[in-house]
Amino acid sequence: MQEQLWKSIVLVRDKSPLVQSITNYVVMNNTANALLAVGASPIMAHAHEEMKDMVSIVGALVINIGTLDDYWVKSMHLAIAQANALHVPWVLDPVGAGATPYRNEVLEGLLQLRPTIIRGNASEILALASKHTTPTKGVDSTHRSTEAVDAALTLNQHFGSVVCISGATDIIVHKDKTVKLSNGHPMMARVTGMGCTATALTGAFVAVHPEDPMNATVAAMALMGVAGELAAQRSKGPGSLQVNFLDSLYTLRESDFAERLKVGA
Amino acid sequence: MQEQLWKSIVLVRDKSPLVQSITNYVVMNNTANALLAVGASPIMAHAHEEMKDMVSIVGALVINIGTLDDYWVKSMHLAIAQANALHVPWVLDPVGAGATPYRNEVLEGLLQLRPTIIRGNASEILALASKHTTPTKGVDSTHRSTEAVDAALTLNQHFGSVVCISGATDIIVHKDKTVKLSNGHPMMARVTGMGCTATALTGAFVAVHPEDPMNATVAAMALMGVAGELAAQRSKGPGSLQVNFLDSLYTLRESDFAERLKVGA
Amino acid sequence: MQEQLWKSIVLVRDKSPLVQSITNYVVMNNTANALLAVGASPIMAHAHEEMKDMVSIVGALVINIGTLDDYWVKSMHLAIAQANALHVPWVLDPVGAGATPYRNEVLEGLLQLRPTIIRGNASEILALASKHTTPTKGVDSTHRSTEAVDAALTLNQHFGSVVCISGATDIIVHKDKTVKLSNGHPMMARVTGMGCTATALTGAFVAVHPEDPMNATVAAMALMGVAGELAAQRSKGPGSLQVNFLDSLYTLRESDFAERLKVGA
Repeated sequence: MQEQLWKSIVLVRDKSPLVQSITNYVVMNNTANALLAVGASPIMAHAHEEMKDMVSIVGALVINIGTLDDYWVKSMHLAIAQANALHVPWVLDPVGAGATPYRNEVLEGLLQLRPTIIRGNASEILALASKHTTPTKGVDSTHRSTEAVDAALTLNQHFGSVVCISGATDIIVHKDKTVKLSNGHPMMARVTGMGCTATALTGAFVAVHPEDPMNATVAAMALMGVAGELAAQRSKGPGSLQVNFLDSLYTLRESDFAERLKVGA
Repeated sequence: MQEQLWKSIVLVRDKSPLVQSITNYVVMNNTANALLAVGASPIMAHAHEEMKDMVSIVGALVINIGTLDDYWVKSMHLAIAQANALHVPWVLDPVGAGATPYRNEVLEGLLQLRPTIIRGNASEILALASKHTTPTKGVDSTHRSTEAVDAALTLNQHFGSVVCISGATDIIVHKDKTVKLSNGHPMMARVTGMGCTATALTGAFVAVHPEDPMNATVAAMALMGVAGELAAQRSKGPGSLQVNFLDSLYTLRESDFAERLKVGA
Repeated sequence: MQEQLWKSIVLVRDKSPLVQSITNYVVMNNTANALLAVGASPIMAHAHEEMKDMVSIVGALVINIGTLDDYWVKSMHLAIAQANALHVPWVLDPVGAGATPYRNEVLEGLLQLRPTIIRGNASEILALASKHTTPTKGVDSTHRSTEAVDAALTLNQHFGSVVCISGATDIIVHKDKTVKLSNGHPMMARVTGMGCTATALTGAFVAVHPEDPMNATVAAMALMGVAGELAAQRSKGPGSLQVNFLDSLYTLRESDFAERLKVGA
């Protein structure tokens, strides 16, 4: 499996896919830099007048609701409509799912459009699935990824999306397949937008693997984890981690990737 | 006093308070990172539909008018109304006060809502107070913090806010108390958003000290100054300063803090 | 020529010009930091209510359409009207020209207001000029700067703007003068917003040289190229490049500039 994942990393570097992101203000700069560091080409645009045209020229679309408002939600719907019409894969990052009724309502509308891939932390995946499950307990802000597997399966069954629960262990589910990744470093949680970056990179990988969103998601998360781990080793704190992480994405070699990757089912 | 301030720093690290910011586009990424580096949890949202709900779950609210427009000003009012209703402390950063009549008008409206804390540079504090004082001279762009003490006292008397004038010497005033801090480094002025970061951190500190906004402000400014000073020592320029500053916030130890802190009345 | 360019760099450091930018969300933080690192003072504001007032106090205006929408386009028009009325020089960055009809239409409207300077990559300059030339071939996404010289001359003739085509070789044209710069490093293309930063710095230089926009553009691009080259030498990847680039802008000395500058006609 590690060889297959590495091939995907090389493919992104070689093909330099265009990825259109409608994402939040906080992370635009670092997700654009992460996309560039892996070899992809980021586009960030949101004007209603150009959503259809922009989506027509890209390999994937990333939708992140972090700093949503009505204008941006409409941009998302316009972009997704075109993505679905042209079979452009799209990835949903349900930032802050469960935090407010407005966020939940917007997310429910986006789910109905059947994202190719959904990536969130355990609390977000639980909140996202809660309308579609018989609730057994409340959603609070800190869950381990293993607690959200049933929620992920529910989302996969209802909407057909590959679902990635990211955390100390990343769990990616699709139909009867489950992959677990155990790379990464706790300090990554002290850099803003690391989750959003994972989602953006997933967009780059599914752009070169539209036929296999499961593999694309696993490859993106594996790259995140290994590059983050390597970067953390060289970093004194979250400031240098952010810098070293971009360098690691750019310089990562197959030998380092193979040596560190912790993947299981 | 140094021991009390250090206790506040530890309290933020332990409690990891949620801080909602309505801030400017330029600094969202680095203020979110600074909040994470000190142990707090940043939220940045502005949709009118969710302001009330967001403010209901946080420990403090930060209002920064840097890149304001009418939509965002309304977001600020919705958020502050809920903060005041729930006694959630809120901090005002009057970026660019005095630069345009629009900014002054918006700020006057925000002042009437009685911010818990106001943090600005000397020129901003002078501009902010000018409507509430008998003007003695014009407001230009470069003032030393000592020149704005009377303006800070006026604001404190009218609106009850703790007022922090930041500069080479930071001066924090509240009723008959004044604290002066002399840490920091001139190169910090060459990194965008260092003032905004100070305001954001003040939000984290008042979230864990809602009963004592004066102490919260002093602790936040002391941390800014000492961490900035330590970072500047290791930095070649403003690029590395920004990185090292986040690392310093994250790694700062009591011994370094105690050794460097320059506090007086 | 190298001495004259260095004098401009010193002038920016000494005069610390105010530069108002209406730019895209992705690059606001790093272009503000680049302006601060060269000694300029950035302002980023977009509210319609304050455009006229803001432009009245600055030395130059930067217009960058990266994440445009209708509100921001109106901000641009309000700001440019005041800039033109007060003879404040303004610089246009036509990000993504040619990507969508909306972008092209907005750019055509901005061109009619006669930018003092236009800076874009070869594909953008070709797209921008295409309405004003007899097309000989289609516009694709990767062109070398030499291919866009005729397009740049067309824009210069029609709108009077100094035109800078940036790339491995930067070409700056104005009337019968052409200057070529061959500094920089390929890794700069893997950091988001390096082009936008070049445009922002051009704003700082034309603010201190309103009488000579050609020289201002050459000086800004020379500084970008030399500082980028120096930074790349010390960098492992695009993360550290971004940091080292800001440090280089801040610390650059005349001897390094003179030694490295590659300028020709």
